[in-house]
Amino acid sequence: MKIGLEHVDDLARGAAILGTGGGGDPYIGSLMLRQAIEDGLTVELVDVDTLGDDDFAVPFAMMGAPTVIVEKIPNGDEMVAALRTTERYVGTAAKAVLCAEIGGLNALLPLVLAARCGLPVVDGDGMGRAFPQLQMITYNIFGVPASPMVMADEYSNTVLIESAAALEVERLGRSMVVAMGGSTNICLYPMRGRDARRSMVRGTLTLALGLGRAVREARRGGGDAIDGLLGYLRSTPYYQHCCVLFEGKAVDLLRETKSGWAMGRLVVEGVGGHAGRRCTVQFQNEHLVAHEGDRVLAIVPDLIAILDAATAEPITTEGLKYGQRVVVVGISAAPIMRSPEALAVFGPAAFGLPDPFVPLEQIHGTAVTRGT
Amino acid sequence: MKIGLEHVDDLARGAAILGTGGGGDPYIGSLMLRQAIEDGLTVELVDVDTLGDDDFAVPFAMMGAPTVIVEKIPNGDEMVAALRTTERYVGTAAKAVLCAEIGGLNALLPLVLAARCGLPVVDGDGMGRAFPQLQMITYNIFGVPASPMVMADEYSNTVLIESAAALEVERLGRSMVVAMGGSTNICLYPMRGRDARRSMVRGTLTLALGLGRAVREARRGGGDAIDGLLGYLRSTPYYQHCCVLFEGKAVDLLRETKSGWAMGRLVVEGVGGHAGRRCTVQFQNEHLVAHEGDRVLAIVPDLIAILDAATAEPITTEGLKYGQRVVVVGISAAPIMRSPEALAVFGPAAFGLPDPFVPLEQIHGTAVTRGT
Repeated sequence: MKIGLEHVDDLARGAAILGTGGGGDPYIGSLMLRQAIEDGLTVELVDVDTLGDDDFAVPFAMMGAPTVIVEKIPNGDEMVAALRTTERYVGTAAKAVLCAEIGGLNALLPLVLAARCGLPVVDGDGMGRAFPQLQMITYNIFGVPASPMVMADEYSNTVLIESAAALEVERLGRSMVVAMGGSTNICLYPMRGRDARRSMVRGTLTLALGLGRAVREARRGGGDAIDGLLGYLRSTPYYQHCCVLFEGKAVDLLRETKSGWAMGRLVVEGVGGHAGRRCTVQFQNEHLVAHEGDRVLAIVPDLIAILDAATAEPITTEGLKYGQRVVVVGISAAPIMRSPEALAVFGPAAFGLPDPFVPLEQIHGTAVTRGT
Repeated sequence: MKIGLEHVDDLARGAAILGTGGGGDPYIGSLMLRQAIEDGLTVELVDVDTLGDDDFAVPFAMMGAPTVIVEKIPNGDEMVAALRTTERYVGTAAKAVLCAEIGGLNALLPLVLAARCGLPVVDGDGMGRAFPQLQMITYNIFGVPASPMVMADEYSNTVLIESAAALEVERLGRSMVVAMGGSTNICLYPMRGRDARRSMVRGTLTLALGLGRAVREARRGGGDAIDGLLGYLRSTPYYQHCCVLFEGKAVDLLRETKSGWAMGRLVVEGVGGHAGRRCTVQFQNEHLVAHEGDRVLAIVPDLIAILDAATAEPITTEGLKYGQRVVVVGISAAPIMRSPEALAVFGPAAFGLPDPFVPLEQIHGTAVTRGT
């Protein structure tokens, strides 16, 4: 499948919803992708089964605080430098680019990189959403080594990290991101086709595209955009359970850029059916948990999306503002993301949250749409 | 020349004097060197002129705060990992190991690494002393690129940094040293024989050996060990000017491990001819400047050594203690270290010191020995 100008906005919107607040501002990614297409470059999406067993495939992402990424926009050359350094060190030319996470900017930039290098992008990613740390990825859970990881900044500096442990790559890499000004371009988990097949969450780029399109079409048809979004999610293989967790107005926002992350929490004061109640959403680049009082409404790795109440346009953590009218939506993560092995890596305890993981559908029973 | 057990203590002593307080505790280095020799490994010193033009030679050093290095002792494998990763990345096998600095531990460990890899060590270094930052080296001043720099820690993590600017390698590397626990093993400024010849301070390993021997022989002969040291220095090609700056008792010591360095200052209260006066020595891993009141007694890049008053045994910054009876000695740096180009990189202003560089011999006129 070729990605054209007509796909860019839908893909960006869908990726931002799946990004659960993180993954970086999709607007920057969509501008860069648009430019690549207008420059005549080919943006090609392929199924992971088209990769040969030994084909070398390299995931790309931006690493850092989304609050920084919106101010320190990549020029595109760093991405290519990261890939080229990886190829040089491994001694093999890449046959494809992979997504690390299907969230925001990070769903779009791999397409830009691939187009610039004349390579296809594999349809899928390693999270089925976005996560704030490098070890929180199915590639790691299925035993693909995180290193060599290459980091490339805007001054043509490149840093290559090798470690047997993904958590060490995260730890060393995070301190380097801070030294590189809070955001940088990375290639990591370089792998062969056979490993991509067994470790990736498949089809999430086309899924993001469909999700973005469903919202647009619901809006154009005059229907409720949030209901359109929920209806589409229920038709997908990964995200069948979803519901409105809360609706209201952003009345308090604490946000700080700390240790290379955007950390904070948002308080939403209820309106309509939620009047007189309050919902708190805690985030570390991505939304981690939504509470009403002591009650958990949804918790990581399940997805929590904050959307504009009128348009269902997703709002990233760095875009949150006082006074916004928002709908907080909960979406069930794919079964692969809820296994004990997966929860050990990106369940609530991995973020230091005291609450245990409870699947969204157990909390809310049959899924409710906005109207109910 | 082969280095035997009989050379180890002299070399360690001489290197610690030239280390001007830094370079890391020579005791650890001498233990490791002794063990390599006792294991039957060959420690061979060669002149830089024996290198072929294209022979690949790699400098090795420990990077970090000496206060940390004394507690986090290298096991030796990290050194080899740093060299092997450099060779792999450049695609060339090393023919020799170089010293980055002829100070303390960092004068001895390259010998251990070379012995373990069956390589010779070139007699010389890039500083003619020790300095706290990676760009403060003649290799940089003569245009040898600092990168690729490889850092290897005790967990088998390796980090490779590439940048066009030595100062960026220092900046990124310093933040990584902190993440690696405050000290680590590095290979940097990898170069060809032709570049080693034009950029190194030659013969400083044999010079350190002679310096250590001179102190030992003066002691054994019953003479004043400090006078023995000064006498030997005056016979060398680089360090003709030297004198006792101050003699007294350590009465105040401020030392903190900050941003990956040992920072602080020592106050010495005078005895004998210096009774009733005070000398302050400021350091960043190495001694930077010695003052008596507002008057500069010696300033970087000239060397300031702090020695035990009775034995002339050098005291490194991490070994300073309240109550020590010390002699502060000033030693002129080699002419190559005092050029305008060199002073721009490691003169007083590079350390944020307000005082200008004044050569030692201009401050003190004809050199004075201890007795005078």
